[in-house]
Amino acid sequence: MDDHITSTLIDRAAPYVSDFDYKGNITASATKPWAKWLEATLGFRNHWYPVDASRNFKEDAPRVVTLLGEEILFIRLEGQLRAIENRCPHRGSRFSVRPLFYTKQTITCWHHTWTFNLDDGSIRCILNNPESKLCGRRGVKAYPLQEAKGVTFIFIGDIAPPPLALDVPPGFLDPDVAVCVADPYVVRSNWRLGCEGGYDPGHHFIHNWSPFPIDRGIPFSFGVVSTAKDLKETTDYEVRPDGPRGFTRHSAKAAMRFDATIPARGTEPATTITLPLAVGMSDEAKAAHEVYKIDVGLWMPCGLIVNPFPGPGCIHNEYYVPIDENSHYYFQCGWRRVNSEQERKEWEGTQGHFNWRVPVVEGFTRQDAEAREGIAKFYAEENGWQNEIIAAYDIELIMWRIFASDNCRGIQKHEHALGHFRR
Amino acid sequence: MDDHITSTLIDRAAPYVSDFDYKGNITASATKPWAKWLEATLGFRNHWYPVDASRNFKEDAPRVVTLLGEEILFIRLEGQLRAIENRCPHRGSRFSVRPLFYTKQTITCWHHTWTFNLDDGSIRCILNNPESKLCGRRGVKAYPLQEAKGVTFIFIGDIAPPPLALDVPPGFLDPDVAVCVADPYVVRSNWRLGCEGGYDPGHHFIHNWSPFPIDRGIPFSFGVVSTAKDLKETTDYEVRPDGPRGFTRHSAKAAMRFDATIPARGTEPATTITLPLAVGMSDEAKAAHEVYKIDVGLWMPCGLIVNPFPGPGCIHNEYYVPIDENSHYYFQCGWRRVNSEQERKEWEGTQGHFNWRVPVVEGFTRQDAEAREGIAKFYAEENGWQNEIIAAYDIELIMWRIFASDNCRGIQKHEHALGHFRR
Amino acid sequence: MDDHITSTLIDRAAPYVSDFDYKGNITASATKPWAKWLEATLGFRNHWYPVDASRNFKEDAPRVVTLLGEEILFIRLEGQLRAIENRCPHRGSRFSVRPLFYTKQTITCWHHTWTFNLDDGSIRCILNNPESKLCGRRGVKAYPLQEAKGVTFIFIGDIAPPPLALDVPPGFLDPDVAVCVADPYVVRSNWRLGCEGGYDPGHHFIHNWSPFPIDRGIPFSFGVVSTAKDLKETTDYEVRPDGPRGFTRHSAKAAMRFDATIPARGTEPATTITLPLAVGMSDEAKAAHEVYKIDVGLWMPCGLIVNPFPGPGCIHNEYYVPIDENSHYYFQCGWRRVNSEQERKEWEGTQGHFNWRVPVVEGFTRQDAEAREGIAKFYAEENGWQNEIIAAYDIELIMWRIFASDNCRGIQKHEHALGHFRR
Repeated sequence: MDDHITSTLIDRAAPYVSDFDYKGNITASATKPWAKWLEATLGFRNHWYPVDASRNFKEDAPRVVTLLGEEILFIRLEGQLRAIENRCPHRGSRFSVRPLFYTKQTITCWHHTWTFNLDDGSIRCILNNPESKLCGRRGVKAYPLQEAKGVTFIFIGDIAPPPLALDVPPGFLDPDVAVCVADPYVVRSNWRLGCEGGYDPGHHFIHNWSPFPIDRGIPFSFGVVSTAKDLKETTDYEVRPDGPRGFTRHSAKAAMRFDATIPARGTEPATTITLPLAVGMSDEAKAAHEVYKIDVGLWMPCGLIVNPFPGPGCIHNEYYVPIDENSHYYFQCGWRRVNSEQERKEWEGTQGHFNWRVPVVEGFTRQDAEAREGIAKFYAEENGWQNEIIAAYDIELIMWRIFASDNCRGIQKHEHALGHFRR
Repeated sequence: MDDHITSTLIDRAAPYVSDFDYKGNITASATKPWAKWLEATLGFRNHWYPVDASRNFKEDAPRVVTLLGEEILFIRLEGQLRAIENRCPHRGSRFSVRPLFYTKQTITCWHHTWTFNLDDGSIRCILNNPESKLCGRRGVKAYPLQEAKGVTFIFIGDIAPPPLALDVPPGFLDPDVAVCVADPYVVRSNWRLGCEGGYDPGHHFIHNWSPFPIDRGIPFSFGVVSTAKDLKETTDYEVRPDGPRGFTRHSAKAAMRFDATIPARGTEPATTITLPLAVGMSDEAKAAHEVYKIDVGLWMPCGLIVNPFPGPGCIHNEYYVPIDENSHYYFQCGWRRVNSEQERKEWEGTQGHFNWRVPVVEGFTRQDAEAREGIAKFYAEENGWQNEIIAAYDIELIMWRIFASDNCRGIQKHEHALGHFRR
Repeated sequence: MDDHITSTLIDRAAPYVSDFDYKGNITASATKPWAKWLEATLGFRNHWYPVDASRNFKEDAPRVVTLLGEEILFIRLEGQLRAIENRCPHRGSRFSVRPLFYTKQTITCWHHTWTFNLDDGSIRCILNNPESKLCGRRGVKAYPLQEAKGVTFIFIGDIAPPPLALDVPPGFLDPDVAVCVADPYVVRSNWRLGCEGGYDPGHHFIHNWSPFPIDRGIPFSFGVVSTAKDLKETTDYEVRPDGPRGFTRHSAKAAMRFDATIPARGTEPATTITLPLAVGMSDEAKAAHEVYKIDVGLWMPCGLIVNPFPGPGCIHNEYYVPIDENSHYYFQCGWRRVNSEQERKEWEGTQGHFNWRVPVVEGFTRQDAEAREGIAKFYAEENGWQNEIIAAYDIELIMWRIFASDNCRGIQKHEHALGHFRR
């Protein structure tokens, strides 16, 4: 825990908050200190991203997945999963039109017989011109992959990939962590709106329409507001060299609001609203509700932690993986610490299914996905990144934008997606 | 009636007519005097527009309508209709995703509980942060509305709205006028092609395929041609400060043509064609046909009058209301002067239905809508505004373009549609 | 036969081949000598193109076909086929909305009665304004047509059309040639990928998936590679003033490969693959296969010849006719020399159907069309024309690109498609 980082981020973010009379030492500059966040339309480059549950890459069943704008062919042969650019460098043929694996280590293009090593992407040979000088040279992009906890991760970038542990939230790789993985689905918004929406302290209100809290009679609030002072006491930003970079907001001090008042105006009286599930609930009961004790955090490049959720002993972890400018994969998994292989199997199977996937993936986070889609047009077509109003509780979003701009390893560009830098 | 305006418009328009040997005092300049008409892709700003029949805005049933590129939420509560920008200024959430009216005077955003006054759009409060300094400041655009004669009008602009009477054709608001309103529908062309097509003297020919004249055996012609001299005698342009601005073309002097000749060429003989419904009709019968006695006019910003039509005592009134660059609402209503509430009810009900809506909306103006769609691509994608050929009878179109450029209150821009100027 | 042309083209192309150690006299320049090929996104202007089988233009049945971006209306009246721009110059109305032929020599616009001569496109008269000065002036583009061998050809350009014989492959117009014509279909790639794919010596491999060779047990190979030396001996480029311009590659000397080896790497052994239909076939049998004796050639502007194919006595001829930037018509016909009208009728009917259309159009060239679509995105969106790798056998493609750039009569531009140059 490094108080200094949090304080500094608060100082750098506060001048941009419309709601604040800021008395700090930094004044807002025309060039916002989160320029890289604004540039990262297609994602951050040189990071690991989860692609899918490993179970969904089956033996001898090639699949194309587009990530950060790059069209990637995945193939598992004799258990070994590989990923290469789905585009022959010769004339741009998509391998996936007719994927040919004459050996377990190569792919042959259906068009002109160029044959590539699956592991490094270089040209092994050209079947109809074995003497070609291109053999052993040039090639396609091959992607580093890692499978862990039933999740397939891919590294998208140009540098030697750092350990996976630097790009997953803390704890994921611990031996006693069992992970239940849901099938990812496509959300029609930019990935950054996923990140911001995940830990946004002001968005709780949307979950009053989520089946899980409705079914269980858990009162959801109008949302909490953290002040800058709260954040200083509850939020840790971490940049240890051997671990992931991100933050944890510990149980917020600010009370959640179950009642709200629309103030009077002229002859209109004030109107007080109590949210349906909180009607008749004592203040004590409200205050005691377990939802208060949840930690939330976000980790580079795009992994959210909600701990515990939906109940004791379970950690919810989700990622917003860029597909292109206008869509991302919503990748979700639920963790539990286990004491035996037996417990692990149970959690990965029916226990995780009923205790995490049904309540969270089916009953809760759909509303988050809808919320992102509900602001997608503003940010994509209406200059939202400039026109938004940064309110009090949005300071956390601004702090993250600055932190991410400071800590990303690069920006994905359209040129990367076109493959111009690869060959 | 102001002869001077008509004469001046003829003088200003004539140099651009390919068909004329113009002997006037003005020469064509490279900068056409209808520049504002060319700019007004999204409509004229600071005018009233009809949106829909008031009956189609039902109690507690929110609807989104896009007009002049602006996405607008309509809500009627306790009888009072309101219209606001469908976009929260905080982060661009569309209110319509889940419209919440906790009081009859406010709307609350489903995403972060920002709550706005429906009448002026300002922030009343933020439910999860009552102390926010944004309360009472900022807000969304709220639109002036007026309901008259069963029609809902909206003012789209930035100035204090002038009286509605200045933006509807003369007579509409007269107490003895009863109005039958058809449901508007979308036409896939720019709205300006609607305006021009409505009074275009050369387009009559298309109605030889309209069910109404075919069913009634009314001969339709190849179209009339008005000369500049005719126009001077038959067309009044009006710019009274207390009334709408526009023109009326009184019964044209030029005869309609029921016969036409394709002249001989080389060994090809001349061919004379008589339109089917005029075959066997005497010249007297043709000349006497009531269609001659119709006045036609167009009024700012986009309201056509055809009087009488389809028969004595009925006035047809239609509007071409911009949706975006490529489409407009075709809004049609039929007027009749009445002597009692009983007569008014009859006209608004079955009488208007059978005597105006069936023959005109179903049996006549569909061909006008098709005609606009038939030239939409030329004007949208093929530089039609520059490449068109301005023929003799098109002088009336040019006169209107100049008049509209002189008399509009502003031009709608994309920035308006994005809301940048509103908050 | 002009050896000099081939040699020169080899010299000009070779410096761009990645695979070559070129020892010639010309060095690669930054400005590639096939600039016109790169510009010709919409096709070459001032050439004849096949549109459709003449049988598909039926009496009194107007049709719109878009070619090289131009929207063209075809109408056959009293047997005479005409083609004009489908756009009235007045206000851009599409004639095809309601095509009116009041005489056999004219078309009348449904909108404002402008009437045009079908043969030269000029305005004959305006029905509702016979005195207009526009009569006899202005007009629409009228297209020269020629019907030959059951094929309708159109000339798209501005110059006096040269004889059709200059734009069809040699022999097509010979009196003893009978032609069986297939209905053209749309392929979703730029037309130039069609040209290049047709004679591409390296693409044979794709036909291992074609029903025709599979059904007949004809072994298809991994493809042939022609060296520059081979090309000099086997390829004739022709530029006779009275004939078409193009080339013929006579039976290639290079052997086709039915076996290929993926070389060993580290502990991986080498893997030898024999194509299924060649398994167990003797070298003699392979060498003797008739597929060796086929000549292939391409002729300006876009006509391929494969001779003989699919069997002795039949010539396959196909064209890639530009529709727009992203699609072309795949127009195919099969020729046979005949000795009598009886033989001609048989070939144009059932004989051509079973001996050419079924094996070639249905059983072979579908894979060519798929191959073009498989590289379309690379060339359209991923800067493929710059990023492609030019391999050994691609020298023939480069030679053609240079030859076509030298010999085309013009480049089709977007302005032509919009009609700006026509009136």
